[in-house]
Amino acid sequence: MIYLDNAATTRPDGDAFLRAAQFCNENFYNPSARYSGGFAVHTKLDGARESILRWIADPAAFDLVFTAGGTEADNQAVFSGARRGNAVTTAGEHSAVERSFTELKNRGVEPRFAPLHADGSVDAEKLLSLVDEKTSFVSVVHVNNETGAVNDIFAIAKAVKQKNPRAVFHSDGVQAFGKLPVRLTQEIDLYSVSAHKIGGLKGTGALFKRRQLALPPLIFGGGQENTLRSGTENVLGILDFSYAAERQFSALAENYARVKGLRAMFWEKLDKSLFTLLSPQDGSPYILTVSAEGARGEVLQRMLFDAGVAVGTGSACSSKNRFSRILRACGHSESVLDGVLRVSFSRETAEEEVSAAAELFNGIAKKYKSRV
Amino acid sequence: MIYLDNAATTRPDGDAFLRAAQFCNENFYNPSARYSGGFAVHTKLDGARESILRWIADPAAFDLVFTAGGTEADNQAVFSGARRGNAVTTAGEHSAVERSFTELKNRGVEPRFAPLHADGSVDAEKLLSLVDEKTSFVSVVHVNNETGAVNDIFAIAKAVKQKNPRAVFHSDGVQAFGKLPVRLTQEIDLYSVSAHKIGGLKGTGALFKRRQLALPPLIFGGGQENTLRSGTENVLGILDFSYAAERQFSALAENYARVKGLRAMFWEKLDKSLFTLLSPQDGSPYILTVSAEGARGEVLQRMLFDAGVAVGTGSACSSKNRFSRILRACGHSESVLDGVLRVSFSRETAEEEVSAAAELFNGIAKKYKSRV
Repeated sequence: MIYLDNAATTRPDGDAFLRAAQFCNENFYNPSARYSGGFAVHTKLDGARESILRWIADPAAFDLVFTAGGTEADNQAVFSGARRGNAVTTAGEHSAVERSFTELKNRGVEPRFAPLHADGSVDAEKLLSLVDEKTSFVSVVHVNNETGAVNDIFAIAKAVKQKNPRAVFHSDGVQAFGKLPVRLTQEIDLYSVSAHKIGGLKGTGALFKRRQLALPPLIFGGGQENTLRSGTENVLGILDFSYAAERQFSALAENYARVKGLRAMFWEKLDKSLFTLLSPQDGSPYILTVSAEGARGEVLQRMLFDAGVAVGTGSACSSKNRFSRILRACGHSESVLDGVLRVSFSRETAEEEVSAAAELFNGIAKKYKSRV
Repeated sequence: MIYLDNAATTRPDGDAFLRAAQFCNENFYNPSARYSGGFAVHTKLDGARESILRWIADPAAFDLVFTAGGTEADNQAVFSGARRGNAVTTAGEHSAVERSFTELKNRGVEPRFAPLHADGSVDAEKLLSLVDEKTSFVSVVHVNNETGAVNDIFAIAKAVKQKNPRAVFHSDGVQAFGKLPVRLTQEIDLYSVSAHKIGGLKGTGALFKRRQLALPPLIFGGGQENTLRSGTENVLGILDFSYAAERQFSALAENYARVKGLRAMFWEKLDKSLFTLLSPQDGSPYILTVSAEGARGEVLQRMLFDAGVAVGTGSACSSKNRFSRILRACGHSESVLDGVLRVSFSRETAEEEVSAAAELFNGIAKKYKSRV
């Protein structure tokens, strides 16, 4: 199987898993237990926290809350940050942010959505025009998970803070973390990441938090994670995450350059009479979204899977509507939306896989269209 | 190490882990992916759901929502169920329920706490007197996690429904699931359980839900778990949970009888001039709580760990206060509270371990007291 659906989830890093599993097998104590066995697990978790923190932030300025995934981290950010007035986000958010914003209405906070450019990036000027003195929270996705468009969250956050210094700024960094060079600045209050997009396990994520920002919890109980996320810690998932991150970050620049080459090669090999490019040229190299206009992406996806290539059609997390909400917000016609395929790479993707996949794309789209 | 802190967490079931890890290694696709690889994972998750459901409920009447642990399941129950008026619980709840109830005040719902009997069970009559026509939610822990006292949640739920049929009834079943014979009745709307108390992994739990009960989500996003718990599913944790539950439930009655014998033997061997029994005789056989009055339980706990026995001093999840909130609510004096040790068994506990642990208890308490 040529796996090119890495934006949905990645193949687990076997070494990271074995290291984490071995520790947990020998140290299964509850990290809150007040004997040395428990302390040892607790200390190990803090080591993992520090290690993940350092890859993109200054531990003196930022802290990290482990969550049960990117979605929970996004929910924690939105519901803890958006407590009054209005909250501003983009039309290009993952459903974890988008659905949480919709729920804000029921909690007396007005959600506002800024429009997108055709490539999936937010219209920053229009976003800023939605921010006013009553804005308590702003959330802008770092890398659009359906097109790979990169928002300049650092510039946007700075401009938001100039307009309203009390607004909390959050970014969903799930598709950026471990892939793009990132260094959190003081204007970023909260930043969500997920383990299983970089070789970690499903069910683990984290919320980076500026130390000086006080937040209420989303989940209450025994006071774990500095009272911000109660519940016995997912020790296996957390350690595995830290090891997977180590592997991913230690070759970030090389992987970035190599994957950029693969993405360019893939597009170069595609038959332009069959496929249109929806992703921006300067987007994340890890995501390439195209449309086989006139074909059904979902059907192509299954034909490709049967032929040995796994790709996406858009966010795997919201597969119930026919058209992608985000790509629709980019302004595409229904016939373009119908034919969408998302190809997403990882550090493991090989050049031969990309060549073979491009050929299968051309062949299958041709076959599909000749049949219609 | 003689491990007698199984109410805090259990040693992971190695076979369950290997089975789950092997599946995930071969089937790492996102369960929401719309190709056959994704469907296969989704189907496997539904199999695990059905399998866990059947152990204590009728799948025609109950559904199951996977959560990231018992604490999250409790939070989901409280915040989804207690939406208006008042909410009634006991003074013997795990902090996941207790802290959530305290938070209800900030959300316009009045929390009410019913007192405990000396053994840790709730005074059911007083609890019922707190239920009125404005009660939207009632939560009663099944097995008190600090004394092992068993509340007759079925009778209590029935009485609650007679008084107010619209009140949602929830029980935290974390210390009962897989240990006591349980069959959910129609009066139980919600029931929380945790994987890592029966040989599963930390970070996985579930909320049993009566099918006819409509609930809002706690975490919003891609719509997983029938929209009740968004976020890519923790496939490893869920499968591992179902395998661990299989092992645990397939010998529930034998384990119950054997552990009951171990508990009786342990208490029989303890020096009654050094230890007082705090657990009820008819409580869960898996928990035995004693007090070495006049000694510091925390110090004894560490001495015991160094001597090779791991035991608890109360809930490992809320280790910040000197005295256990729950045992204090049982009416014990501070000198009794100071000396608390919780011994908790598992199906793996061996008779020789229990004998050896009892001797160490006697020896170390004697040593401690002779020094003071």
